[in-house]
Amino acid sequence: MGNIITKVLPGFMELLPEEQIEFDRIKNVILSTYERFGFTPIDTPAIERGQTLLAKAGGETAKQIYSVENKRGGTGVADDKVSEPVLRFDLTVPLARYVAEHFNDLSFPFRRCHIAKAYRGERPQRGRFREFYQCDIDVIGRDKLSIRYDAEIPSIIYQIFKQLDFGKFTIRVNNRKLLSGLIESLGITADAAEVLRIIDKIEKISPEAFESMLKENNLTEAQVAGIKRFMAISGKTEDVLKALKGLNIDNELFNLGLEELSTVTAAMEEMGVDRDYYQIDLSIARGLDYYTGTVYETKLDDHPQIGSVCSGGRFDNLASHYISEKLPGVGMSIGLTRLFDQLRAIGVVSGKRKTIADAVIVPMDESNIATALNAAAEIRKNGFNADVLLEDWSVKNKFKYVSKKDATFTVVIGSDEERDNVIVLQYKQGDEIIKERLPLDKAIAVMIGFKKEN
Amino acid sequence: MGNIITKVLPGFMELLPEEQIEFDRIKNVILSTYERFGFTPIDTPAIERGQTLLAKAGGETAKQIYSVENKRGGTGVADDKVSEPVLRFDLTVPLARYVAEHFNDLSFPFRRCHIAKAYRGERPQRGRFREFYQCDIDVIGRDKLSIRYDAEIPSIIYQIFKQLDFGKFTIRVNNRKLLSGLIESLGITADAAEVLRIIDKIEKISPEAFESMLKENNLTEAQVAGIKRFMAISGKTEDVLKALKGLNIDNELFNLGLEELSTVTAAMEEMGVDRDYYQIDLSIARGLDYYTGTVYETKLDDHPQIGSVCSGGRFDNLASHYISEKLPGVGMSIGLTRLFDQLRAIGVVSGKRKTIADAVIVPMDESNIATALNAAAEIRKNGFNADVLLEDWSVKNKFKYVSKKDATFTVVIGSDEERDNVIVLQYKQGDEIIKERLPLDKAIAVMIGFKKEN
Repeated sequence: MGNIITKVLPGFMELLPEEQIEFDRIKNVILSTYERFGFTPIDTPAIERGQTLLAKAGGETAKQIYSVENKRGGTGVADDKVSEPVLRFDLTVPLARYVAEHFNDLSFPFRRCHIAKAYRGERPQRGRFREFYQCDIDVIGRDKLSIRYDAEIPSIIYQIFKQLDFGKFTIRVNNRKLLSGLIESLGITADAAEVLRIIDKIEKISPEAFESMLKENNLTEAQVAGIKRFMAISGKTEDVLKALKGLNIDNELFNLGLEELSTVTAAMEEMGVDRDYYQIDLSIARGLDYYTGTVYETKLDDHPQIGSVCSGGRFDNLASHYISEKLPGVGMSIGLTRLFDQLRAIGVVSGKRKTIADAVIVPMDESNIATALNAAAEIRKNGFNADVLLEDWSVKNKFKYVSKKDATFTVVIGSDEERDNVIVLQYKQGDEIIKERLPLDKAIAVMIGFKKEN
Repeated sequence: MGNIITKVLPGFMELLPEEQIEFDRIKNVILSTYERFGFTPIDTPAIERGQTLLAKAGGETAKQIYSVENKRGGTGVADDKVSEPVLRFDLTVPLARYVAEHFNDLSFPFRRCHIAKAYRGERPQRGRFREFYQCDIDVIGRDKLSIRYDAEIPSIIYQIFKQLDFGKFTIRVNNRKLLSGLIESLGITADAAEVLRIIDKIEKISPEAFESMLKENNLTEAQVAGIKRFMAISGKTEDVLKALKGLNIDNELFNLGLEELSTVTAAMEEMGVDRDYYQIDLSIARGLDYYTGTVYETKLDDHPQIGSVCSGGRFDNLASHYISEKLPGVGMSIGLTRLFDQLRAIGVVSGKRKTIADAVIVPMDESNIATALNAAAEIRKNGFNADVLLEDWSVKNKFKYVSKKDATFTVVIGSDEERDNVIVLQYKQGDEIIKERLPLDKAIAVMIGFKKEN
């Protein structure tokens, strides 16, 4: 004892119970909404074959991969040395592997959600975690997938953030084909990926810096002007679509993108996304190689510094590394660990409940325990979580426990209550503490009523 | 493509959606019951400091630990080389670390549940997994913890397995002090741990083998007879308690164990555990060093070959390696991955639902999509999970999708339905397929009624 460190490793999040309850509440809103829309949860191992994951990972991501090894004489993880086991770094690559592996057992469009931890060797700093929850949904088609699914994803983002109390938000939608088509149409010969990367930065840099970065990449005045004219377009959906049409760009990709964006935004309205909660944002490019059509980002209007809280888009082929079937799809992801940490830092989320128990039941004396247990059973049957204090403590210590747990309801049972066949129900109405002596069934009715109102 | 392996590593479980839904259903029964009893979920990193976990792990477990390393130029996990990061091998050691680390922020008795994956370098074989879910609850006291909590744990086991449809089960209860006291009272000088290990085997070996193994450990005839007399006691709770008393063993530890066992079984009945579902079993010893009082095992009566499906007990001090506070506790654990695998192998559990969607909504034509989306929104508001087929497919392909998804309800909307302001609701009543043309609100009422009945 003594010099053993009990703090978690840097870059890992560990929450106190009250924070954990709030984290789980948010996670459950996300999961239940995914399920409402028919996305079936899957679960894949956190440890995968290195060669399998690395087939899809490049650059920085590959460097951040954690290897797993049994060094102490156990049997190891891998069968063979080739498949060096590693921790997954996201949930998309495991999805690609899952779909390829179980292709014949799945029905398409395959709708899956996956909420689980992934691991990356990030340099630890505020908002960067080495272990983090991803909350993903994807719809995967076989050969083809209707563009309407591109509208369903933001309709789910809308439902989730409407339920969460993080304030007003805006879903930003764009289509990668517009940008790629524009670059083609302007005859830009520079590295298109580099141009997209500059466009992605437009919100963070000055107009002058933007222009000079483009020129550094050998874009002509006319080409820069073309990009600026495009990027200047903003406003209401119909105005943006009209202005894009008004550019009269004679490029197949561009016009396909325009058509897709029109269809997606129209379908989003059919799907109940409030106009005030989304906008077309032509500056969004996202993951340069992966996405091929519709792309989304979501920002909290009151907390723009957080950046995008929910992003995704359309891709042409999920699993080309693993299977020769063409699997187009569309999806999105919420990086919950990072989001929670940031919202906590600015006070938007905080621990509200110290226990998952709705009610703490306190028998005043050993002789009241049987009655207290019966009351607890009845309260639980009515859908409440209840914790019975079984310690034979002084009254003072019992109420210290009650006050520390701070559950919504306290139920006290003493010998007087047993005699009168009642219980004492205690709860807060605003700042006022209500204390009522009631028969158990009446007390439960009060609890049900209170829960509905609050 | 081609030679990249998409199969999971040996010793890892990956389920198809229909199996996953069943797995999650069981997991949710466990979690919601834990929460009903006021056990707050916590979450700890899967990666911990090696020196911290190893302080509590010995022997085989230590050998099975997986190390985690960043080999590719990222920033690694550990701050310093001393704290070699490893994957957790259970949820008990992380609990001890958590309680020590956050001691001042927790209120005691601290009731936590934790359902998460742990990792061990097991030799892969049927029923042994390298990544597995543990579903743990523990009540941790400060200095003292009422013996009544020892009765609450089996009452929760009872509630969980009554809800799960694995057939009749029996919770077996014992108290380690009885065995230890008996060994003391018989003046056995041989290694007590070794004697307990032999007693633990009694169900698996013949009476002759049992006797000769004891004698090999230098037990006298009288000592062997004493143990056999003790082990022969079985039957109804009150008979066993009476017989134990009748042994007239003059040993403090033994008599304390007897008193505890009497209190715990009496309290179990107060807590509603049906007499038919538990018994005292004097042969249960369990985890030789860890448990110090009450111990439990649970067996499925119809599937004894599975062994214990839920085990636990009382311990004197949770976190002596990390903190100088005395933290007695009692808890139990369900090894869900192994249990699910075994129940699946014998056909007790199987995938029943192929999708999390309760209803698949099928617009017959592009022009019916808007109405279908409105119907889906209404159906979702009523608590159903719904998936709208957005593909512009032939009728044949649409119904292939419906039949593959095999959701409880199918809702079809064509132009005739739109005109008549109805939908077609289809579902199975026994073997019969019911097909009704109804206004949406009536259809939802039918769905709600059907769900209640089924």
